[in-house]
Amino acid sequence: MRNDGRKADETRPLTITAHYNKHAEGSVLIEMGDTKVICTATVEERVPPFMKGQGKGWVTAEYSMLPRATNVRNQREAAKGKLGGRTMEIQRLIGRALRSVVSLEALGERSVTLDCDVIQADGGTRTTSITGAFVAMVFAMDKIAREKNLSRFPVNDFLASVSVGVIGETPYLDLNYEEDSKAKVDMNVVMTGGGAFVEVQGTGEEAPFTRRELDELLGLAEGGILGVIEEQKRVLGPIADKIKGASHAAARN
Amino acid sequence: MRNDGRKADETRPLTITAHYNKHAEGSVLIEMGDTKVICTATVEERVPPFMKGQGKGWVTAEYSMLPRATNVRNQREAAKGKLGGRTMEIQRLIGRALRSVVSLEALGERSVTLDCDVIQADGGTRTTSITGAFVAMVFAMDKIAREKNLSRFPVNDFLASVSVGVIGETPYLDLNYEEDSKAKVDMNVVMTGGGAFVEVQGTGEEAPFTRRELDELLGLAEGGILGVIEEQKRVLGPIADKIKGASHAAARN
Amino acid sequence: MRNDGRKADETRPLTITAHYNKHAEGSVLIEMGDTKVICTATVEERVPPFMKGQGKGWVTAEYSMLPRATNVRNQREAAKGKLGGRTMEIQRLIGRALRSVVSLEALGERSVTLDCDVIQADGGTRTTSITGAFVAMVFAMDKIAREKNLSRFPVNDFLASVSVGVIGETPYLDLNYEEDSKAKVDMNVVMTGGGAFVEVQGTGEEAPFTRRELDELLGLAEGGILGVIEEQKRVLGPIADKIKGASHAAARN
Amino acid sequence: MRNDGRKADETRPLTITAHYNKHAEGSVLIEMGDTKVICTATVEERVPPFMKGQGKGWVTAEYSMLPRATNVRNQREAAKGKLGGRTMEIQRLIGRALRSVVSLEALGERSVTLDCDVIQADGGTRTTSITGAFVAMVFAMDKIAREKNLSRFPVNDFLASVSVGVIGETPYLDLNYEEDSKAKVDMNVVMTGGGAFVEVQGTGEEAPFTRRELDELLGLAEGGILGVIEEQKRVLGPIADKIKGASHAAARN
Amino acid sequence: MRNDGRKADETRPLTITAHYNKHAEGSVLIEMGDTKVICTATVEERVPPFMKGQGKGWVTAEYSMLPRATNVRNQREAAKGKLGGRTMEIQRLIGRALRSVVSLEALGERSVTLDCDVIQADGGTRTTSITGAFVAMVFAMDKIAREKNLSRFPVNDFLASVSVGVIGETPYLDLNYEEDSKAKVDMNVVMTGGGAFVEVQGTGEEAPFTRRELDELLGLAEGGILGVIEEQKRVLGPIADKIKGASHAAARN
Amino acid sequence: MRNDGRKADETRPLTITAHYNKHAEGSVLIEMGDTKVICTATVEERVPPFMKGQGKGWVTAEYSMLPRATNVRNQREAAKGKLGGRTMEIQRLIGRALRSVVSLEALGERSVTLDCDVIQADGGTRTTSITGAFVAMVFAMDKIAREKNLSRFPVNDFLASVSVGVIGETPYLDLNYEEDSKAKVDMNVVMTGGGAFVEVQGTGEEAPFTRRELDELLGLAEGGILGVIEEQKRVLGPIADKIKGASHAAARN
Repeated sequence: MRNDGRKADETRPLTITAHYNKHAEGSVLIEMGDTKVICTATVEERVPPFMKGQGKGWVTAEYSMLPRATNVRNQREAAKGKLGGRTMEIQRLIGRALRSVVSLEALGERSVTLDCDVIQADGGTRTTSITGAFVAMVFAMDKIAREKNLSRFPVNDFLASVSVGVIGETPYLDLNYEEDSKAKVDMNVVMTGGGAFVEVQGTGEEAPFTRRELDELLGLAEGGILGVIEEQKRVLGPIADKIKGASHAAARN
Repeated sequence: MRNDGRKADETRPLTITAHYNKHAEGSVLIEMGDTKVICTATVEERVPPFMKGQGKGWVTAEYSMLPRATNVRNQREAAKGKLGGRTMEIQRLIGRALRSVVSLEALGERSVTLDCDVIQADGGTRTTSITGAFVAMVFAMDKIAREKNLSRFPVNDFLASVSVGVIGETPYLDLNYEEDSKAKVDMNVVMTGGGAFVEVQGTGEEAPFTRRELDELLGLAEGGILGVIEEQKRVLGPIADKIKGASHAAARN
Repeated sequence: MRNDGRKADETRPLTITAHYNKHAEGSVLIEMGDTKVICTATVEERVPPFMKGQGKGWVTAEYSMLPRATNVRNQREAAKGKLGGRTMEIQRLIGRALRSVVSLEALGERSVTLDCDVIQADGGTRTTSITGAFVAMVFAMDKIAREKNLSRFPVNDFLASVSVGVIGETPYLDLNYEEDSKAKVDMNVVMTGGGAFVEVQGTGEEAPFTRRELDELLGLAEGGILGVIEEQKRVLGPIADKIKGASHAAARN
Repeated sequence: MRNDGRKADETRPLTITAHYNKHAEGSVLIEMGDTKVICTATVEERVPPFMKGQGKGWVTAEYSMLPRATNVRNQREAAKGKLGGRTMEIQRLIGRALRSVVSLEALGERSVTLDCDVIQADGGTRTTSITGAFVAMVFAMDKIAREKNLSRFPVNDFLASVSVGVIGETPYLDLNYEEDSKAKVDMNVVMTGGGAFVEVQGTGEEAPFTRRELDELLGLAEGGILGVIEEQKRVLGPIADKIKGASHAAARN
Repeated sequence: MRNDGRKADETRPLTITAHYNKHAEGSVLIEMGDTKVICTATVEERVPPFMKGQGKGWVTAEYSMLPRATNVRNQREAAKGKLGGRTMEIQRLIGRALRSVVSLEALGERSVTLDCDVIQADGGTRTTSITGAFVAMVFAMDKIAREKNLSRFPVNDFLASVSVGVIGETPYLDLNYEEDSKAKVDMNVVMTGGGAFVEVQGTGEEAPFTRRELDELLGLAEGGILGVIEEQKRVLGPIADKIKGASHAAARN
Repeated sequence: MRNDGRKADETRPLTITAHYNKHAEGSVLIEMGDTKVICTATVEERVPPFMKGQGKGWVTAEYSMLPRATNVRNQREAAKGKLGGRTMEIQRLIGRALRSVVSLEALGERSVTLDCDVIQADGGTRTTSITGAFVAMVFAMDKIAREKNLSRFPVNDFLASVSVGVIGETPYLDLNYEEDSKAKVDMNVVMTGGGAFVEVQGTGEEAPFTRRELDELLGLAEGGILGVIEEQKRVLGPIADKIKGASHAAARN
């Protein structure tokens, strides 16, 4: 049994609080165990320079941790004067993953920025950010769709993410910080509601991993993600039905 | 009557949630109306270079707003690569104010860093940060005092802050964002539990102000701050009694 | 008696040398005792982006100290690659104070930038900068008013600043560096020629201050500022009469 | 057939020129088709602060492209004043991958820095960098092992990397730039000579990918990497035999 | 005799490999002894803001060294976040020198950027960069002249550069790194094919130099540069004849 | 005749005001016509890391212009967050030139930093800075020599600098800004009191220059510099005699 009493294929308790911020076009507070992230979606009626004049929208993300989100205080990146490599890698991942289920044409020439601010960290901050940011984004997309009378809902499918890893010889789902620091293999998986992969990032810095281990980890991730998507649907309520892939995903279950 | 139904000399509802963060040595979520700030206190057994070898401690603060804390999204200072003037001014103010009620000698050669992260802004973020940071700091000081057997509690007095301002011809206590943007005079006041001033910062960019207006604003601020300190005491519970100035402040009321 | 033989309510000798720089639209070398600041006003026929298209002008300020203006050499901020918090705070203060007596409408869509470069520091560099920058600005405004045939002189009132502080139990006017480092309370006051406050910034880092102390300090400041404004008028000569508030101020004396 | 006449499971011609730089402790010019990277290994008798005093070494990497390595000139990151997210992501990947086959204990308290500078880019610059950096690193490790009489050769296994991707419905090995820009799924795989995975990074920004596609891509990558390792062995000559995993890998073939 | 067997007035072996980069409009790999520089010319159909609308073109240069181009590894300027003084000085010199033989009017409103990346350094990197960049630039100019049907070839004369210096009491031509570190006077000379000076930069940090020494150094430089220009002509082939100053230079020999 | 009535071989009026700054160990205000520079020398009892433990001192320089030193206001480099190439080039030149006449051994393990701040510019700011910085440095060296009982005066010779240039076909001494902008050749020369060259930097961006022109310019510079050194001696008074090269220079005249 794990240090918090879970089974190997069990995720931590997941809570998503909708409309956590009164200003944002979409927002949630997502809690995956003790990992807590505020995700806000900001809609702006303009796109970055490289996207101008194409009649298409843009979705991007930023990620940050409060200095004391972690056990030891980290210096602010604003004080250092630059973003670290880890931060850039994570925010590129979040943006890329979200765009994979968005129709930029249907969105039209406007942008949605997802801010994922980790207020408390206990492992899995990037996967939790993706899961929460998806919900905040859908709330914002729904607002755009209604106010701008979009002809098509710009989100094609559900999207969620979990981490998996191998500790000793055993694969586990949804590692907390203590587990993560003991894992010899660490993998982040992003999947759609339709069950397809959007990102698979497996790293064996401690030790390389075999094809069999890879297969087991992907299986665990798939199970975890489908559960997480159920909670996303619950929070989104009737808006969930506007997502094209929703029926598909439902069919799979 | 004001846009939220308050009287001119009334503060917004104040809630301080203790121990909001599981990692920090002291922490609160403070809510002053819709202004919400997470304040965490981090204790480190070292002091900045300029304080080394003096047998004294240090207290400092950092301040930031999440990008969508405000009605319009602000670019992250980490992305810009530098802190803005407003941020620097505020974090210098918070640190200076907190140090005014701390005995750095009693603290010993260690430092306490207060991180004030505004997760939602509706006016008065700097004054709310001071009020919340004080409570987070006292929790951390209590932990130090117990674990390191300090001979004297290093906090000398209570400390809180409110904003006041003149709209039209009327002075008001605790301006929210909408009021703040209409004020011709804006003043932030920091006071001790003993009723003395630590900071008085009054600005009349729209219009200069008279001595009489200044006097009225200081009166309003004093009333507001004493009320805020009552809430600080409630949250701190028995720890409040360790603060030397506590009896003094009590005597005043 | 003070270390330089002054009485408690006496300012240091003040000299303002007009037209110190042959390129600038307005300039002075201001000397307040051993504190020496070059203030230049630059006029540009454009405004910052956030002011565009409003038919109004802008006044802003920058502040810096030569590396060896102080007793110990300071590293250049250009070499550090960023402005310090103190610099930002001061230049925001100078700009805000100057704008309080300027009619941006009367100025029209152009900007005046005041550069305050401290070439020797001995306490009171920010207050001396405000006093000198006001004169340089008025010279520049006069040039604009004549060349562009402004219908109204864009400066409404005089503006000057002094520092005051409490050393031991005694309040003093215009602290030099040695006095400033001993002061338990430090206050910068900016006033108009009409006798109203524009900025009151009092700090009691060493010890909080009482309402009575605040009142005494404000009284000292008022006396000092009126004297400083007399010198401004002398240097400005006939241009002084174009300032609307001039008669008012004269009436007060 | 592909635009350069290759079959789907064929890599581009690979040339590795040893000792390309006269100063570095190890160096190669690696050419994978028209992608050309200079990899140099620098040995320093010190480790970064966070590794000090542990009796272990460190291996790290930096990656850059000359401005005109690509079809359109890119601004230098030195001129921009900061590293981009893509650069950081790649250099973190290279360092992590190399460390997975190094015994930091056997290396001892010294560091090896691999500089991968792309002088011409035509797809697969990060995978080519890993393959080339491995060889440069082994040359440097051999120099250390001989000069410092290490008791054990600090490299445990071979390491190489290729990219794979899906264009249309077909999976391809080792995409060139033109192919890469048409791929809907893009995957970088790093493997050891022993046939285990070190990194698997698959991204489906254009379209999510199925489990079957993932499996086919991994199969292609495995074949490609084993071929690349043969070339590494040829260039390393007798030094190749010092790598523990060498016999293992040989056994597999 | 010198450490590499050369006579005092002899340059190191010079090799210029044309078209080293498949993307650039002009490119060479230039090798002056063990100093190796990749020079690429990039043509863009726009000019910097300060040149806009004048109907004239622009030529500029950037210079960098790979971290391990030198015997000891240098930190990347991109990692430091800023260009060093030496880099800026060199790239300003290269650009200025190239512009001296270009007719910006004949070029038309477009820009040519020369990137000089030192891949191995052994003294004389700035002079070698100028010599190589000139050839890369001429290739690019020829491409422009043909594709845009320029009425006049925009390069007026040849241009090359060598270093000279005094070691002990003897003046030497084309110092390698070891010689350069022993030189008491160091001079870089840039000349046209017509034999006129474009830049003379002599520095006597170790010891001042006399007028006679200066004269001898200039004589050596002149001889060296004319030899280098012969190699430039050989590499340029028939394009060399398009340069107006070519006949002039030929006449001198 | 020139625009200010001078002959071709005449410098502008030169005034050097000693001890212009009350804090610095040495300081002057130098005025060469309308070019005005404050030069301060700061002595610190430490050397930069790369000089540590060699028993030798260090001399370095920084250069800056106030924003409105020029006819058009320049943005502060501190606000831009980095030093420009021109600034770096100039401060490297000043430091190098000063070190050429200093015995770092005689100075001992301490450093002298020369700050050259141009308060008004009218051509020749770098040469004027060198001339002024030399005097400020000598004052500081004299203070060190007396207080630390140096066995030998650490300055070996006088040092000064002027600019020369060719306008039309005529060579001129000491160009002012208007002349400088018309010059086709521009040269800065630094010489010792003993008449030897320390730096010769000639640039013909507008047009290359011949050997004959170079010779004439060097002749003009030599005459100008000797006159400038006379003024340095006058200001230094008896301290001038401590400079070893002084008698030599005197002999020349």
